[in-house]
Amino acid sequence: MSKKKAEPAGELALIQQIRSTFPAGRSTAVTLGIGDDCAILRPPGGQEVVVTTDFTLENRHFRRDLHPASSVGHRCLARGLSDIASMGAKPLAAFLSIALPGTMLTTARGRQWMAEFFAGMRSLARRHNTPLAGGDTSQSPGDLILADIILIGAAPTGRSLRRSGARAGDLLYVTGSLGGAHAELTALKTKRRSQARGSEVHPHLFPQPRLSVGAYLLHHRLATAAIDLSDGLSTDLTHLCESSRVRAEVDAAALPLHPLTSRLDPQQAMHAALNGGEDYELLFAADPGTPIPRRIAGVPITSIGTLLPRNARKPLLTLRTADGSSAPLRAAGWEHFVS
Amino acid sequence: MSKKKAEPAGELALIQQIRSTFPAGRSTAVTLGIGDDCAILRPPGGQEVVVTTDFTLENRHFRRDLHPASSVGHRCLARGLSDIASMGAKPLAAFLSIALPGTMLTTARGRQWMAEFFAGMRSLARRHNTPLAGGDTSQSPGDLILADIILIGAAPTGRSLRRSGARAGDLLYVTGSLGGAHAELTALKTKRRSQARGSEVHPHLFPQPRLSVGAYLLHHRLATAAIDLSDGLSTDLTHLCESSRVRAEVDAAALPLHPLTSRLDPQQAMHAALNGGEDYELLFAADPGTPIPRRIAGVPITSIGTLLPRNARKPLLTLRTADGSSAPLRAAGWEHFVS
Repeated sequence: MSKKKAEPAGELALIQQIRSTFPAGRSTAVTLGIGDDCAILRPPGGQEVVVTTDFTLENRHFRRDLHPASSVGHRCLARGLSDIASMGAKPLAAFLSIALPGTMLTTARGRQWMAEFFAGMRSLARRHNTPLAGGDTSQSPGDLILADIILIGAAPTGRSLRRSGARAGDLLYVTGSLGGAHAELTALKTKRRSQARGSEVHPHLFPQPRLSVGAYLLHHRLATAAIDLSDGLSTDLTHLCESSRVRAEVDAAALPLHPLTSRLDPQQAMHAALNGGEDYELLFAADPGTPIPRRIAGVPITSIGTLLPRNARKPLLTLRTADGSSAPLRAAGWEHFVS
Repeated sequence: MSKKKAEPAGELALIQQIRSTFPAGRSTAVTLGIGDDCAILRPPGGQEVVVTTDFTLENRHFRRDLHPASSVGHRCLARGLSDIASMGAKPLAAFLSIALPGTMLTTARGRQWMAEFFAGMRSLARRHNTPLAGGDTSQSPGDLILADIILIGAAPTGRSLRRSGARAGDLLYVTGSLGGAHAELTALKTKRRSQARGSEVHPHLFPQPRLSVGAYLLHHRLATAAIDLSDGLSTDLTHLCESSRVRAEVDAAALPLHPLTSRLDPQQAMHAALNGGEDYELLFAADPGTPIPRRIAGVPITSIGTLLPRNARKPLLTLRTADGSSAPLRAAGWEHFVS
């Protein structure tokens, strides 16, 4: 609002930090990166462009007392990359809008936090060849860190995986395992944080977006529809069913539970897998005649259910349990607003 | 953070409001809009893609007691469109990440504010054929409205206007007039708000991004470099000079002052024009041999100075005054951080 005329040492230092953390690399897609009014991208010929934006807001998506800064940076980027993965696309570039409390730039502790945040983001960006090509910086209007990540990706024209392509009769698959993020978050809240590293033991702090799986599904034309599991299986499967105008039956015994869910009682473990969210696995549908590898790019693929024709007298989602009974499965994952 | 399990009436209502306010139009560039993990865009053949992101944060970029909601929506989009204009590009699509306090969705007053916010944004979006193709929604972690606008544009490959192309000897031009936004903001703060509408009288509340001028400059290959005046002439000209490795002399008497600056004393008027920021005019450079129209797309174009070879003994920017004297001009516009 007001036009403060102080020296912009903080912001210049921040932008310098971003530029040195994310040097202009050998990307062929980014013609012009940080430093102009817009970045310039040149998508590969014959490709369409996919775009997603995702907030990472302190006290809403992370807590500074719970999440290491490197995890916040990692998860911020992972949220966007996972959306790119669910389309079967490849990332071209990321953009970061970030607003910071002034103390993040003026105190040693704040600068250390920012350095670790950017290191966490850079590590994941490098793994997936995703240059940071621009964004915006601002002083936060309060004491909270506010970030918005934007991912631009590309896929062969007309081939991007959508939520809407599934058909009755298709089988449902998930990548990796479910419930780990919820189980780790529960442990974090009770201070039982593991000292080990890696996504196997840190599905919440360091989730791995399934870009290789998504690209494989698209390249080999295996999937009829896909979505990433950000809000929780029950909620994201609801989205897929609504978009594809089908209903689903999920086999509870088939759900690949993350090893960390063994710390929970069985009912809590099932809740984590169905509603926990933030696993960032892919959920996809495939024709029953399409052979699906048991592993893709090293990631286990598990068949978890079936899609069926919509029927007004039946629930959109049904959970079949081991004893042969079945019950409606309600969308009960992450809600972005609570009234 | 926590997995609240309430019904998402608020968010569904918000997304429904966004979808009905910004219906999928006849855009040929947006193949898939709101409702999947990513939007899908198909830029015209032979074009490169330009991308910009800009925060609009309550109490930082606007105040609810000062700015009508329609102005906040207008300005949010205008910030991004102005960056597209400065590249000479055409907008393909906008994306909006928006976080709202819960009361914005649950109270009549909040819903009214949101309706006016979206109406202000839609009005400007329609004027510039810019569909809203996606984004993110979240509950705000505090009581503040937080928005991030992302604009995707396209320009013929290799032709986008940059900050870096100007050469010593080029002449400097601005579109429209300067200082109006600062003058109106000053008046708003002292409650002397005009009841009239339109950008002539509301350069702060309803600035007009110069997309037609930018596109004209690119199409006719008139400009060697361009930047939009978001932070203020002194600061944005500094950016242009640093990127192009030149210095600049600005002729104070040539600056096209906005009529609203006549309410200010002459020194304040000059300050508004040089440092006020948020005028969202274009600043561009052109070869002295290139004839520049006096109006482009109805917008006056004014020559305001000259670019010269860098000289370590001379200031980057010099202001020549009417009496023939000259003084260093310091970058004193908007700073995003204050330490």
